[in-house]
Amino acid sequence: MNPPSPPAQIVRAIDVIRKKRDGGELSRYEIHSLVNAYTAGDIPDYQVSAWLMAVVLRGMTRPETAALTDAMLHSGDVLDLSSISARKVDKHSTGGVGDKTSLVLAPLAAAAGVAVPMISGRGLGHTGGTLDKLEAIPGFNVNLPVAQFRRILETCGCAMIGQTAEIAPADRKLYALRDVTGTVESPYLICASIMSKKLAEGIDALVLDVKTGSGAFMKTEDDAAFLAELMVETGERMGKEVVALITDMDQPLGSMIGNALEVVEAVEVLRGEGPEDLRQLCLELAGWMLHLGGVSATVEDGKRQSEKLISSGKALDKFRQMVELQGGDPRAIDDPGKLPQAQRTMTISSPEGGYLASLKCEQIGTACVVLGGGRERKEDSVDPAVGIVLHKKVGDAVSTGELLATIHYNSEARAQRVRELLEVSYQIADSPLEKRPLIHRIIGRT
Amino acid sequence: MNPPSPPAQIVRAIDVIRKKRDGGELSRYEIHSLVNAYTAGDIPDYQVSAWLMAVVLRGMTRPETAALTDAMLHSGDVLDLSSISARKVDKHSTGGVGDKTSLVLAPLAAAAGVAVPMISGRGLGHTGGTLDKLEAIPGFNVNLPVAQFRRILETCGCAMIGQTAEIAPADRKLYALRDVTGTVESPYLICASIMSKKLAEGIDALVLDVKTGSGAFMKTEDDAAFLAELMVETGERMGKEVVALITDMDQPLGSMIGNALEVVEAVEVLRGEGPEDLRQLCLELAGWMLHLGGVSATVEDGKRQSEKLISSGKALDKFRQMVELQGGDPRAIDDPGKLPQAQRTMTISSPEGGYLASLKCEQIGTACVVLGGGRERKEDSVDPAVGIVLHKKVGDAVSTGELLATIHYNSEARAQRVRELLEVSYQIADSPLEKRPLIHRIIGRT
Repeated sequence: MNPPSPPAQIVRAIDVIRKKRDGGELSRYEIHSLVNAYTAGDIPDYQVSAWLMAVVLRGMTRPETAALTDAMLHSGDVLDLSSISARKVDKHSTGGVGDKTSLVLAPLAAAAGVAVPMISGRGLGHTGGTLDKLEAIPGFNVNLPVAQFRRILETCGCAMIGQTAEIAPADRKLYALRDVTGTVESPYLICASIMSKKLAEGIDALVLDVKTGSGAFMKTEDDAAFLAELMVETGERMGKEVVALITDMDQPLGSMIGNALEVVEAVEVLRGEGPEDLRQLCLELAGWMLHLGGVSATVEDGKRQSEKLISSGKALDKFRQMVELQGGDPRAIDDPGKLPQAQRTMTISSPEGGYLASLKCEQIGTACVVLGGGRERKEDSVDPAVGIVLHKKVGDAVSTGELLATIHYNSEARAQRVRELLEVSYQIADSPLEKRPLIHRIIGRT
Repeated sequence: MNPPSPPAQIVRAIDVIRKKRDGGELSRYEIHSLVNAYTAGDIPDYQVSAWLMAVVLRGMTRPETAALTDAMLHSGDVLDLSSISARKVDKHSTGGVGDKTSLVLAPLAAAAGVAVPMISGRGLGHTGGTLDKLEAIPGFNVNLPVAQFRRILETCGCAMIGQTAEIAPADRKLYALRDVTGTVESPYLICASIMSKKLAEGIDALVLDVKTGSGAFMKTEDDAAFLAELMVETGERMGKEVVALITDMDQPLGSMIGNALEVVEAVEVLRGEGPEDLRQLCLELAGWMLHLGGVSATVEDGKRQSEKLISSGKALDKFRQMVELQGGDPRAIDDPGKLPQAQRTMTISSPEGGYLASLKCEQIGTACVVLGGGRERKEDSVDPAVGIVLHKKVGDAVSTGELLATIHYNSEARAQRVRELLEVSYQIADSPLEKRPLIHRIIGRT
């Protein structure tokens, strides 16, 4: 989509607010006018926050959602990666606990010949962030200028950086306002925020990992599917190939939570090891990335190619190359001892025998934040070394006194709070429960 | 009601916004905290506008509405008129075209022994305002300090002034924000705004004139009744006697529209003359004021007393006395030639014969604004002399070429625009239509 034609008449913010308040459908031109004027500082916060609340409570149609995404996308730079001949494909997750798939997928898809220009975020609340994980690698620089990002992408096929000031400034301004006005929780606004930033990467296709369950922002599968459909349709309206996998976040993904620990586990997967759930999800997402990236005829073929790239060591080589190009110490990939290490560990054992029935996922994410591994406020710094290793996952048999988890910590007081949190996060049952599926649903491209 | 007890814990604006967004009921303490913090400048506009939009779309319960009214009332001074032994009763109208009842009612009720401490507003949009009408009387001062207001009230039994900075400052701040954020149109917010200002007058009882019809803010009788019930219940929850009359505003009230013209017509009613609809409505409202003011056993008795006070000239004497006490020229009451006069008049005749079927009320109010008699923006000044005199009302027989209206104007260009507006405001039918009742419903005290 192109920005709409120049104004035939001035759009007044008050009229746009009233129209949405009364349940009307805004035109593309009205939405672009509002977003552009707000980004330029021509409309005050108090008008936009009233409009945002009206959107939260009245919703948006699909064309309105696409227009809002488009307006936010074009509020800043859109990367032009046409110099790269490979198809550009990215993956985005709505956030969870222990989700280190990005660290596996970028080098894996790049090893297959797909270009992966990945712009990621930091952890907030109980969820982790890719940038924080990458920064656990000594020297790794996520704050690269666009020119260098492009050079690394051309050299290596993948590059992973943080948000730049030039990308979707409207989203930055709107998100800050939503955060303080109770207007974060709207699928339409969430969709526009995610999609405007992802499409600014100049990609051809996008694989979305929409989490559902107790550790996800979307607790129910229906809410997750609604958001997923919205993002898929919005991306398609803007000429991109988009597929969304609704995946489980009712317990943490994999066994390790914490920045350096997650790098270790991602490397394990790139070596063909690592926990089964994480490995399976990485292969599924990689299969889609390769398929949408035009290097595999089917998703299944993409998964097979990915497995080969892992067993041949090519995927890990690619990760090593990217780490080096972004200033990181590649030896940390092969020797976890070169990653930040917590000073102490403490173990938690099961008070009874049976089967692990549930693991309170959000609570475990919060436990990692309490250790210092995440941030409660944007300005907080993180401790890359701390975290939690889970020795049992939902469905596993456990005997009395058997190890459930190990806490990696640097502060005794924090570790004690986390022990208490973890002790109430486990539920043991007499008989094994039916396991939730890892992949609940696939939306788009069917 | 008294302000709630001191804070047990800090209320965060974001939590109050989220609770209302999700349809929850706010506590008195949460509402008082929000209003107090906003009035003190401790909460930014952008949070309050998001909250206001959530209130518009989610509504409020009766206890919430009463708590909001109470918080706004206690944001400033509440007049203490306990030194006046008579019961204090006011009347408030939700705004219409040609509604000059306040100018009749204040002296009429005062002549009967009721104290009327009336704090009024200015015209805005297509509706007129009592202060603008009073200021058409040469010298009349509506900006009196509270001490002088009280002295005049003690001397004369009635006094009519404008809003002071000390009364309900929260309403002033909230109204300014609502005006620019599309959050005016909520019965809950309208109720709290009206009732907080009226109860700050230190009254014992209140008669509400809630207009309905094409010239009113509440177009349908149901909307008007909803607002009326809300205001009656809110007033009662706050220990006041309140009654609301739902009255017709589908055509202008009386025959004259424009500030000086409306003074002339109000004086006519105080002389026992004037148009029948205006006369009837004044007597009905006066009947209620006298009854709630404790000087008549029934409303009917109050109406009879009012008729006598008019025929004896005592009501007009009271008006003359109040005008003089507030600095106005009392000779203007007896000699309309001493009121501002427009330089020219222009007549509009009926293009066909039949019966007047409808008169577009809002359009006629707007026509008066176009002449300069009202204001489109708060900062506009008004021309007291201009206006419109209607020679026919809905239901009247009219023959071809007969006079429909006379425009009193000072600008030829404006008069031409108004002629065009008026010509499309009249609808003539072949047979007489059933007339709408003047008083649709009475709410409260039944």
